[in-house]
Amino acid sequence: MSNQECAVNRARVLGRLEEISRIGALENGGVCRLALAPEETESRARLIGWAQALGCVAYADAIGNLFLRFGNVGSNEAPVLVGSHLDTQPVGGNFDGVLGVIAALECVEVLSSQSDRAFLPVEIAIWCNEEGARFNPTTMGSAVHAGHFPLADALAITDAGGQSVEAALRQATASLRAAGISLAPRELAAKYRAYVELHIEQGPVLENEGSAIGVVTDIQGLVQYRVEVSGMAGHAGAVPMEGRQDALTRARALMADIDKELAAIDGLRFTIGRIDVAPGSINTIPARAEFTLDVRHPESDVLTRSAEQIERFRGRAQFTRLIYQAPIPFDPEIVRTIETVAQHRGLGSRRIVSGATHDAAHVAALCPAGMIFVPCRGGISHNENEYCAPDHIIHGTQVLVETVMALAGEPGQ
Amino acid sequence: MSNQECAVNRARVLGRLEEISRIGALENGGVCRLALAPEETESRARLIGWAQALGCVAYADAIGNLFLRFGNVGSNEAPVLVGSHLDTQPVGGNFDGVLGVIAALECVEVLSSQSDRAFLPVEIAIWCNEEGARFNPTTMGSAVHAGHFPLADALAITDAGGQSVEAALRQATASLRAAGISLAPRELAAKYRAYVELHIEQGPVLENEGSAIGVVTDIQGLVQYRVEVSGMAGHAGAVPMEGRQDALTRARALMADIDKELAAIDGLRFTIGRIDVAPGSINTIPARAEFTLDVRHPESDVLTRSAEQIERFRGRAQFTRLIYQAPIPFDPEIVRTIETVAQHRGLGSRRIVSGATHDAAHVAALCPAGMIFVPCRGGISHNENEYCAPDHIIHGTQVLVETVMALAGEPGQ
Repeated sequence: MSNQECAVNRARVLGRLEEISRIGALENGGVCRLALAPEETESRARLIGWAQALGCVAYADAIGNLFLRFGNVGSNEAPVLVGSHLDTQPVGGNFDGVLGVIAALECVEVLSSQSDRAFLPVEIAIWCNEEGARFNPTTMGSAVHAGHFPLADALAITDAGGQSVEAALRQATASLRAAGISLAPRELAAKYRAYVELHIEQGPVLENEGSAIGVVTDIQGLVQYRVEVSGMAGHAGAVPMEGRQDALTRARALMADIDKELAAIDGLRFTIGRIDVAPGSINTIPARAEFTLDVRHPESDVLTRSAEQIERFRGRAQFTRLIYQAPIPFDPEIVRTIETVAQHRGLGSRRIVSGATHDAAHVAALCPAGMIFVPCRGGISHNENEYCAPDHIIHGTQVLVETVMALAGEPGQ
Repeated sequence: MSNQECAVNRARVLGRLEEISRIGALENGGVCRLALAPEETESRARLIGWAQALGCVAYADAIGNLFLRFGNVGSNEAPVLVGSHLDTQPVGGNFDGVLGVIAALECVEVLSSQSDRAFLPVEIAIWCNEEGARFNPTTMGSAVHAGHFPLADALAITDAGGQSVEAALRQATASLRAAGISLAPRELAAKYRAYVELHIEQGPVLENEGSAIGVVTDIQGLVQYRVEVSGMAGHAGAVPMEGRQDALTRARALMADIDKELAAIDGLRFTIGRIDVAPGSINTIPARAEFTLDVRHPESDVLTRSAEQIERFRGRAQFTRLIYQAPIPFDPEIVRTIETVAQHRGLGSRRIVSGATHDAAHVAALCPAGMIFVPCRGGISHNENEYCAPDHIIHGTQVLVETVMALAGEPGQ
């Protein structure tokens, strides 16, 4: 197979991204397509239309994940799964999620042009509510599909307006039906041959190093805390410095000590994303300070050890563990396949750990999985300024297409 | 004059404090008498009634400060002024303000029993909206009276419900009139012989040192800032530690450097009472951090120098100066008089700087002024747990009475 034969169609890929970006477009170039909202449903309908034109059949599972099957429709043969999500943050960008979906569709486009060769079935996956922006938590659809989150619990989650996932899902399905689209049922935790997802990095590493392709080896593990420090309120003018029990001063000392411990751990990322003090008055000594701690590492034992080190400060504050997600290593075979494909195309690549979590973290429990990252400008994401250059889009899509062809390729040969 | 002759009536003072504490009483022992609200007006009516029974005449100025004149009524002779305020915080205590008013009334009680001796006229002052809780700013009434704040601006200030000071004042005056109380007009910035105010310390110094009487020498000066630090948002998992532009990390380093500078300045009090970060999400690197800085010192040049030192950090943040109040030194003669009175009574006293501001800070611009502090438990104020022991109340009132008698005493002798 020559490079020429499986080349992606640049105009088609960029044109489709552009077309989807108009659904839910915001004033400053960004987009708002909340999970199961009319804008997301419209973008799903557009995808289904394009896929059906290629002979795909559309399935949906009970939590609203969409599967567009190409090849051997009707058989139970485990497909190679490729996809991402179409929902966005309330003020989101035009690449997070949708790039992986349009690139997955391009895989099917290229496969459909290779009618002379046999492939395993390939399915485009469009995961429901990856962002967690309308319905908390994030990666809800893939978590339910993989059996990591109970279906009934997910259906009962409500948005800020009080609408449940179940009701929103019913509405979205009704809208699709009204547009003439019906979806065949798909069981949860179905069998897959492999899963690959293309995504913007959402960090600055590839851009800074001039790498076109990030070969994702792992998704970092994550532990998050709420930390509460107590003190005693007092008048900022009346209470002498000596003998103050200033909760913020204590919290700052604690943060500095935690910093010192964690900075010594190689590869650890930690962030204090929120801090609040009470009563929060300019002339009152804080009686209470509360901050969050987000700690990530790709290695399970390092993450566990870091958590232990943090919890050793228990004497100075109340630590509440909010979440613990173990690191996810991706399939070494898929990692090598992506690397080989990039090399054949002459694209600079580097192995990279995903700092953010993704649907692939859940799907990795069902089948060998991998991810491909492409650079985004300044590492900016979840923001209207999110930007991925056309060349990066095309290079990433090309590597995805050839990886999927390799995974689905020519069985029996 | 013997100690016996001018002794305060313990039962009367404590009983009146108890009676006023019932007006606006809250569930947990505290009180809510917002400025110009019906509860405060009712407490003013009670005071006027008690004072009228002693032969006082009630005056009010254009901003709702109340003056209850005893002796030489109708003359223009400059009186010795003694007072405080009756308004409270929304969840306030039973001593802040009201103690100084009941003690001022006790001065008139004792004077009225000394009918054989000549005194200058004495007036009880009840300042309007000292707390600044309903109408911002604090010490509004005394500031307007002293010419430090324009009357028209003050009348136009509105509360959270949109009612103006002017409308609230009209309502309060109508309520008093309906209760048969009419108020003679009093010009702003009237002439006074002296001003003395008794107040709870609102800090822990007297209690910690076991002093019954605080002889206030100065009110600290105050400079407040809003400090804004910029950074760059990013995903807590995706952006490596190196090269992060974390606004909170920067703000913490700045706070530490400011700490170091200011800790070296003797007697300076500084407080960070508020801190906020944006976007304030657990898994997002802060793009912006904002905190306040409240800095106090009794000496003008030290305060000015401290402000300069703080503003030298301009390169690292945006500093907005919110307020600058110069320190107020009290009259050395009055300070000595209070000290002598306490000594004669055998009460332990110490010189003390007021950390909080008070109406006396404004009145000090019109006449020689001074303040007397008494201990409050744990330094707690603006709180339902505010507590001043009966002995401290009586000792403070006794010192106030004798100080006023000394200031108003026996002219021509």
